Amino acid sequence: MKNSIGTSIILTLAGESHGEAICAILDGMAPGIPVDEAFIAAQLSKRRPKGPTDTARREPDDFRILSGVFQGRTTGAPITILIPNTNTRSADYAPTHTLARPSHADYTAQVKYGGFQDWRGGGHFSGRITVGIVAAGAIALSALRTKGITIGTHILECAGVRDIPFDGIDPALTAGQVQRVSELDFPVLSDVRTLMESRILEAKADGDSTGGVIQTAVCGFPAGVGEPWFDSLDGVLARALFSIGGIKGVEFGSGFGLAGMRGSQAADNFFRAPDGSVRTATNHNGGVNGGISNGMPLIFNAAVKPTPSISKPQATIDMDNGTEATLELKGRHDPAIVRRICIVVNSLTAIVLCDQLALRYGTDFLR
Amino acid sequence: MKNSIGTSIILTLAGESHGEAICAILDGMAPGIPVDEAFIAAQLSKRRPKGPTDTARREPDDFRILSGVFQGRTTGAPITILIPNTNTRSADYAPTHTLARPSHADYTAQVKYGGFQDWRGGGHFSGRITVGIVAAGAIALSALRTKGITIGTHILECAGVRDIPFDGIDPALTAGQVQRVSELDFPVLSDVRTLMESRILEAKADGDSTGGVIQTAVCGFPAGVGEPWFDSLDGVLARALFSIGGIKGVEFGSGFGLAGMRGSQAADNFFRAPDGSVRTATNHNGGVNGGISNGMPLIFNAAVKPTPSISKPQATIDMDNGTEATLELKGRHDPAIVRRICIVVNSLTAIVLCDQLALRYGTDFLR
Amino acid sequence: MKNSIGTSIILTLAGESHGEAICAILDGMAPGIPVDEAFIAAQLSKRRPKGPTDTARREPDDFRILSGVFQGRTTGAPITILIPNTNTRSADYAPTHTLARPSHADYTAQVKYGGFQDWRGGGHFSGRITVGIVAAGAIALSALRTKGITIGTHILECAGVRDIPFDGIDPALTAGQVQRVSELDFPVLSDVRTLMESRILEAKADGDSTGGVIQTAVCGFPAGVGEPWFDSLDGVLARALFSIGGIKGVEFGSGFGLAGMRGSQAADNFFRAPDGSVRTATNHNGGVNGGISNGMPLIFNAAVKPTPSISKPQATIDMDNGTEATLELKGRHDPAIVRRICIVVNSLTAIVLCDQLALRYGTDFLR
Amino acid sequence: MKNSIGTSIILTLAGESHGEAICAILDGMAPGIPVDEAFIAAQLSKRRPKGPTDTARREPDDFRILSGVFQGRTTGAPITILIPNTNTRSADYAPTHTLARPSHADYTAQVKYGGFQDWRGGGHFSGRITVGIVAAGAIALSALRTKGITIGTHILECAGVRDIPFDGIDPALTAGQVQRVSELDFPVLSDVRTLMESRILEAKADGDSTGGVIQTAVCGFPAGVGEPWFDSLDGVLARALFSIGGIKGVEFGSGFGLAGMRGSQAADNFFRAPDGSVRTATNHNGGVNGGISNGMPLIFNAAVKPTPSISKPQATIDMDNGTEATLELKGRHDPAIVRRICIVVNSLTAIVLCDQLALRYGTDFLR
Repeated sequence: MKNSIGTSIILTLAGESHGEAICAILDGMAPGIPVDEAFIAAQLSKRRPKGPTDTARREPDDFRILSGVFQGRTTGAPITILIPNTNTRSADYAPTHTLARPSHADYTAQVKYGGFQDWRGGGHFSGRITVGIVAAGAIALSALRTKGITIGTHILECAGVRDIPFDGIDPALTAGQVQRVSELDFPVLSDVRTLMESRILEAKADGDSTGGVIQTAVCGFPAGVGEPWFDSLDGVLARALFSIGGIKGVEFGSGFGLAGMRGSQAADNFFRAPDGSVRTATNHNGGVNGGISNGMPLIFNAAVKPTPSISKPQATIDMDNGTEATLELKGRHDPAIVRRICIVVNSLTAIVLCDQLALRYGTDFLR
Repeated sequence: MKNSIGTSIILTLAGESHGEAICAILDGMAPGIPVDEAFIAAQLSKRRPKGPTDTARREPDDFRILSGVFQGRTTGAPITILIPNTNTRSADYAPTHTLARPSHADYTAQVKYGGFQDWRGGGHFSGRITVGIVAAGAIALSALRTKGITIGTHILECAGVRDIPFDGIDPALTAGQVQRVSELDFPVLSDVRTLMESRILEAKADGDSTGGVIQTAVCGFPAGVGEPWFDSLDGVLARALFSIGGIKGVEFGSGFGLAGMRGSQAADNFFRAPDGSVRTATNHNGGVNGGISNGMPLIFNAAVKPTPSISKPQATIDMDNGTEATLELKGRHDPAIVRRICIVVNSLTAIVLCDQLALRYGTDFLR
Repeated sequence: MKNSIGTSIILTLAGESHGEAICAILDGMAPGIPVDEAFIAAQLSKRRPKGPTDTARREPDDFRILSGVFQGRTTGAPITILIPNTNTRSADYAPTHTLARPSHADYTAQVKYGGFQDWRGGGHFSGRITVGIVAAGAIALSALRTKGITIGTHILECAGVRDIPFDGIDPALTAGQVQRVSELDFPVLSDVRTLMESRILEAKADGDSTGGVIQTAVCGFPAGVGEPWFDSLDGVLARALFSIGGIKGVEFGSGFGLAGMRGSQAADNFFRAPDGSVRTATNHNGGVNGGISNGMPLIFNAAVKPTPSISKPQATIDMDNGTEATLELKGRHDPAIVRRICIVVNSLTAIVLCDQLALRYGTDFLR
Repeated sequence: MKNSIGTSIILTLAGESHGEAICAILDGMAPGIPVDEAFIAAQLSKRRPKGPTDTARREPDDFRILSGVFQGRTTGAPITILIPNTNTRSADYAPTHTLARPSHADYTAQVKYGGFQDWRGGGHFSGRITVGIVAAGAIALSALRTKGITIGTHILECAGVRDIPFDGIDPALTAGQVQRVSELDFPVLSDVRTLMESRILEAKADGDSTGGVIQTAVCGFPAGVGEPWFDSLDGVLARALFSIGGIKGVEFGSGFGLAGMRGSQAADNFFRAPDGSVRTATNHNGGVNGGISNGMPLIFNAAVKPTPSISKPQATIDMDNGTEATLELKGRHDPAIVRRICIVVNSLTAIVLCDQLALRYGTDFLR
């Protein structure tokens, strides 16, 4: 499947950073879902670099829906979304493009594609491609919302500054947090924005970059979705998350924190809520048991490495002749990609969950 | 695909904890690979509970290869391996089977399968099923070894005791560690076995259990394998790992540790080794850049939650009538599953990597 | 997927003609479906060689369900069915196994598997493997019947003798034909059995074999199932049918007969039936328009080539040394495989249609 | 996968007849393949309606490659091809769009998509979409040609006029036929064009349409490619072919003709050719045994039904209210689609075969 993900609802992604356009095809969405172009534009805006903590590359992200939408609603046929690239400065890359940027995909692309890859701005490996995920994901997010399912991601940690975590236990409380955070350009739950931004700018001033941890919550997702073994809900989500450049770790619920707990501490004891629903008193498992959702909020964290494009000189090799070299990067880069990844994760999560629901309840479920 | 994983080489898994047998079908392996039944038996032995830190259930793990092997070698047709279940004590489960064990899949299975699931001993969700992964994985591990690719997993942390990590930077050094650790029943790199075991037994004495972190290294894996985006090598491996019960987090290289680093610290600078190969001075990325292997050792960690089956009383609900109840578990359980998961991870990793190699280099590559 | 077929409901097939057993794993069936072992046995009996027009190899076809069934019903976990091989006479094949049997898979297997294939009795290419399709298909057929969907296949033509075709237009009339024919050991709609059998025996007496055309009807299948383009219902069924050895052509409705018609003749005009349903006055399209079912009976034909195993001497090559040679086959062969293929087609069709329904209406639809 | 086909090389198709554009994404092609835009244009020209026997809708078929090609060669990343729709006359369809055209997908689309489908000009079901197959297929055909593999399709029968068949036995002779026929706008092997055209125009004059049979030959395809059972080469090709609107039957080699033969007639006896290669004296199996190519030319036929869009009045129903109605079609239609389907079949066959080769020999095989 390579650049496609999903079984009943499938996203296919194409395009390069400095090519003509990014193209996303979302296939299998139920017919009749209203497509709100203003919402798509708003989501793209959240992903767009905007302040001093983001890259100076500014794209208008105009998009065109070329197929699959008719009279304002999905038709059931594949939805093609095209986002033209306009603000490309390939000249920034030309002088150094044979020097493999450390912790980037330049060297692996060279080995895999034998030098034929489009190296301009990272080509098909660029974070620019995620604009297609966000555009397609907006339709998925809308569809989920009509079923009472909401998704939000915040910056749990960045540049040494830590936000509070989602509640994750009380569904209503968590849903409120999700709702609030999904509307923010700089998504944090507590009052840490100013401090985080100043720390990011410190790194930038040093010609450096920072990483972080993002945390996602999904509220209203029904119990009984997912599979044991190889199509486990956590496995399918993790596969999707690792496709996003910069994500190097994924954990559900208490994740790596469970390693130090005892079984009695980690047990999510069941109880019967006043409304009759079955709930757990804690949510160490992040809403998934045995690969299947248990009705509690889905909670997962992703580790985001610091942007590998930095201004500091770096030791590397020249891929043309194999000699060692020093790289001094030009180009416009994000000192921290963490903020912008949040909306990408929401979008990709939405597509994966729509697929899971369609598999479980049929292709018309989201109509 | 549900209980199948892979594209060119595919593992399909069936069976229940207390059913007649576990069945694994491994399809797509190149023809002509020698099948060493003694090695399969040895691998199964590593997975088998043996000491006081494991469950008291002891299975001989006799296996029969029913198809796909002829005159001692793979034929290219699907390989069926059957492992009968013999030592089952379903009576242990009967009295409490309507009580959902916290942090187990009982409740999610009930919702998904509507009460028709085989609940004896965890049914299809049981760790018992991993015996099929280990048997099939032994063939994959043998095939990889002839290509100079070795896989090893050790207990990086368990019950509060920490082992040293794999080197991960020097390929030869790491390969030596992998080789040594893959032969151990209790795989640790340093002298921590006695301490770990005593801490596990402390938990057991308390009617409790412990979790941990396991770390895997793959040496000799070629650069240029994997895909950008949705079939990224890290994503495909993570999906596989999350299918294993108890694994709640996966990180590559420095993983969540990257969140606190700056870009200049996290950069894996390239250099040219004396043998002419391209290497990196550090391995924060765990051997994967942009979803594609870079020729360095693949390094990843998995968080294993403490075994949810404990003897202490737990609050839960009765799934028959929805009332709250107290669960006091009988049955034979592992106070720590960490040791036994190591061999499962090696096996599943081997199958996933064989698939990746077959996709990249063709179906005859492993012959 | 190789030896697996399906997306939500998946059949995996393993085994060789003279190996220890045939294994079929049917994954994804809804939980709670009653499993009638007597019906499975009866279906296997229909496939079994029995009269003078079939091979002299007689297998009891004892089967064992090893997983996925609990207390007489499907659990939702993968169903493993094992059918041991007992009556194998590999010695029949040994003397000539390097001589490629014309129109068989011996030569292609040799090229693909490099000589490592199990050549005994055709190995993994043998019609024997279809016993797994029939066993698994019996469960699918049962599940469909509870939804009012019935499948039947008859011998439309064999050895120069032609049966009458299914009505295909009147749903009730066709359903009656389907019901009757699905109960017969020698499935024909008119009084042609004696003549067909005598013509087959004539061929056998000549050391030769005959082919034929089989015709399948599916009644009660709902409209609106299938996909435009690459998952068209006809394409998915055709792919399945071509997997059966000996099938060399597939046509839907009037199929190749449409080539000589004009558009006005081939048009299936719509009308409103007295019961309010939308129907077509003819069924030239075999119940599929644009890849999607239209609610009329699904009708398709498959061309079955004459069994390539014949007693007459045949010119061929020795695969060991490439020299030309004359093959004189021993072994027990069917002078006509047509009768026995009917039940295989019913079974495989049932599995494919269960998968289509699960994709369309969700995994619980067949419960 | 729905609108995607392939495993290692994947075509995804989107667009509607009267939407903004048709979009094809071809993923997984090896890097470094020269992309000849003039050849793509020439192929599109062969598909384009041109004479009196085709529809009067004339599209310039300008195409733009938006990704995956850099400096004139494939990069290995997904190739996006966009073909804008310009000559659309949706007004032709508006007055009658609730009347289900017999033998068209209008009714099945209505049931499946609940009225939300784009009904203009057949929407996503239109033959217009095949322009994407032809554009993407041109790149696949070029890649195959560098490996000595050529594909050609001719009109074997149309409107009662029959062309001679491909030789199919002599590889050189067949390759010559393939080469010649692949360059023709009206692909026939013998001197039947004038007669065929006049018969098509007779049908058109009657307000009617005609069908036919097309025959495809693939020369130079290596032996040993394909799989037994569910990924058989014939099954995979058949699935692809049935996705093309109007194709209602597929047969390999002598296909349905085999039904009337005896085994001794149908046997493709092997011999050793003067060049040392293994060949068969006849090619009744169309180059495939047991789902795997045998090195002989691949030969298959497809039955094409007469275009269902005719000018004659037709009985149907109004999908809005379920009443019966008479349909009198306006719009521009092909009296025979057979000629134009030939190039679509070549293109789709090329994509499927590239995928098969990549699976067998690795992703770099076509480089």
